Amino acid sequence: MSPSDRKPIAAYLGPTASYSQQVWILYPASKPVAALQAFSEDVWYLKPVTTIDDVCDETQDKHALLGVVPIENSTNGSVVFTLDDLADRDGRYKDIYVNGEVYVDVHHQLLGHKNANATRPSGQGASGASTPTAADPTPSKPKSKPLENLDHIKKLYSHPQAFGQCTKFISTYLKNAEKFEVSSTSKAAELVAADTSGTSAAISSKLAGDFYTLDTLAASIEDRDDNTTRFLVIGTQPTLPVDYPLRQDPAQRTGTKSLVTFTVPHKCPGALADILGCFREFQLDLTSINSRPSLLGPFQYIIFVEFEGHRLDDTDGRVKSALEKIATMAQKFRWLGSWYTYR
Amino acid sequence: MSPSDRKPIAAYLGPTASYSQQVWILYPASKPVAALQAFSEDVWYLKPVTTIDDVCDETQDKHALLGVVPIENSTNGSVVFTLDDLADRDGRYKDIYVNGEVYVDVHHQLLGHKNANATRPSGQGASGASTPTAADPTPSKPKSKPLENLDHIKKLYSHPQAFGQCTKFISTYLKNAEKFEVSSTSKAAELVAADTSGTSAAISSKLAGDFYTLDTLAASIEDRDDNTTRFLVIGTQPTLPVDYPLRQDPAQRTGTKSLVTFTVPHKCPGALADILGCFREFQLDLTSINSRPSLLGPFQYIIFVEFEGHRLDDTDGRVKSALEKIATMAQKFRWLGSWYTYR
Repeated sequence: MSPSDRKPIAAYLGPTASYSQQVWILYPASKPVAALQAFSEDVWYLKPVTTIDDVCDETQDKHALLGVVPIENSTNGSVVFTLDDLADRDGRYKDIYVNGEVYVDVHHQLLGHKNANATRPSGQGASGASTPTAADPTPSKPKSKPLENLDHIKKLYSHPQAFGQCTKFISTYLKNAEKFEVSSTSKAAELVAADTSGTSAAISSKLAGDFYTLDTLAASIEDRDDNTTRFLVIGTQPTLPVDYPLRQDPAQRTGTKSLVTFTVPHKCPGALADILGCFREFQLDLTSINSRPSLLGPFQYIIFVEFEGHRLDDTDGRVKSALEKIATMAQKFRWLGSWYTYR
Repeated sequence: MSPSDRKPIAAYLGPTASYSQQVWILYPASKPVAALQAFSEDVWYLKPVTTIDDVCDETQDKHALLGVVPIENSTNGSVVFTLDDLADRDGRYKDIYVNGEVYVDVHHQLLGHKNANATRPSGQGASGASTPTAADPTPSKPKSKPLENLDHIKKLYSHPQAFGQCTKFISTYLKNAEKFEVSSTSKAAELVAADTSGTSAAISSKLAGDFYTLDTLAASIEDRDDNTTRFLVIGTQPTLPVDYPLRQDPAQRTGTKSLVTFTVPHKCPGALADILGCFREFQLDLTSINSRPSLLGPFQYIIFVEFEGHRLDDTDGRVKSALEKIATMAQKFRWLGSWYTYR
């Protein structure tokens, strides 16, 4: 009997050792971040899949009871692959609802093989060609230094999002390395582990470094200390499954959020301002706003609005009233779910 | 005497044969798209630079009188590198204004080397492993077919935006090729030209194919016929230079647009809806809305709003009134320019 025969499945973005998996396994249960403890392996069977589309497919097709997808990073912004799936232009994901959100601190490591011909980290010796000096100060200083000499690193692999989160370290210590964008940070680590020349490095997680037995050449190389990724928990019911609870402590509840998407009538450009005005009219605070091409015509958009409020826990009816009004004004309108937020 | 001694410089995103350059040189002057004829080489010296940052640097430092940067594609959405430069978080581009916009139709070619061991295009012969058949229909059919056999293509290079615009062709005809994301579509063509194995291909422009003497393996492989990229013309004055006009016919003028950016006070989430309400109050139609991380704190945003109206051609004062009101409500507010739009 496989684990999935006994437990409900939660699908997440793999391969093994990706940041999505860390939601569950990198952080010890003792870490005081309630959201990271949301999925207990006592209750859930955690299934890694290859792409964000796969997470949505597994969930829509009910092979997984819930899925987890990255939605935005505090340094790098929105994850457009997830927005495009939620935009659901062709109706593939018609049953999907957002049921919750999870925040994960992201720390990037530079992983590779130590330089056999050098012992001192570049930046502390005379040989570091790309090392900033007093005569050549780096305008935007990275917060961490290499632990090992980096002169031998000629190729650097990572996901575009991770490159975007480590610009200061790269421009200071790896200016001359050729950059290769790959599909995930753990794929980058896999490629570096397979490169027997030892001249490549990956920006990836500590977990991936352990998994592929790579040396940590530098730790926590992200530009900012507060580098955080927000994930959405998705399902095919408007609310979380009652029988398979997440680890969420009602005492830690901080508020509510909802997500809606809509398009505006093509011949009526004033409609966008009018629709956004509805949130103001019903005193619903906007927490984020995004747009993606609608693909109905050039430069027409699907607008994503997240706001504070819960459609199914709406004692004064403000959410209901606002959504009813928007539905009459928008061309395509979809409530994608409401959820509780936790400390 | 170099051309730049005589003519004002317009900087654009290179390297040679990129889509930005096509604004001027791919389209014949006879093409009835006024915006594409904006920069005459009789008047302007066109200077290719390597990155979007370089275009902004050249313009801010007044090495170029104007610059051109891609802002959004009709299939793929916003160009975040340009948004991040316009966000100008560290004040590097404090003098930059948007002075105009240019639309360019984008057609992608699959470029490489013909398969020496095959004559029939894959998809028309029995050997095409990734060819859709009646028994295995492709749900989303590409609009063009390969001109040549593609069985030998093992590696595919392009810019992430171009991959995003050709998903149907790739998933139908190049499903098993390994994808490599590189910095520009012309860089992709350069890499393929340098690969003597002949087993790689690039998604790039016809111009790049001619420049690097590559075979066209398939033409117009973009998902949509109406694939268009919008570019912004940037300068360091609020209006276009009078002495060096663009090729813009006043009789073709269609309207006006303005761009503003702002952040909202951290402790006042209702402010975003209030600020957006100002556009509605003064009947200014929103044409696009975007957000990027402010990097002032996690999940705080810089909001980009484009709307119809011109701050310097504002007879009824609606733009002035709206911007004055927003300036009192926003935390950081910047008018990034107003311009005329042309047919």
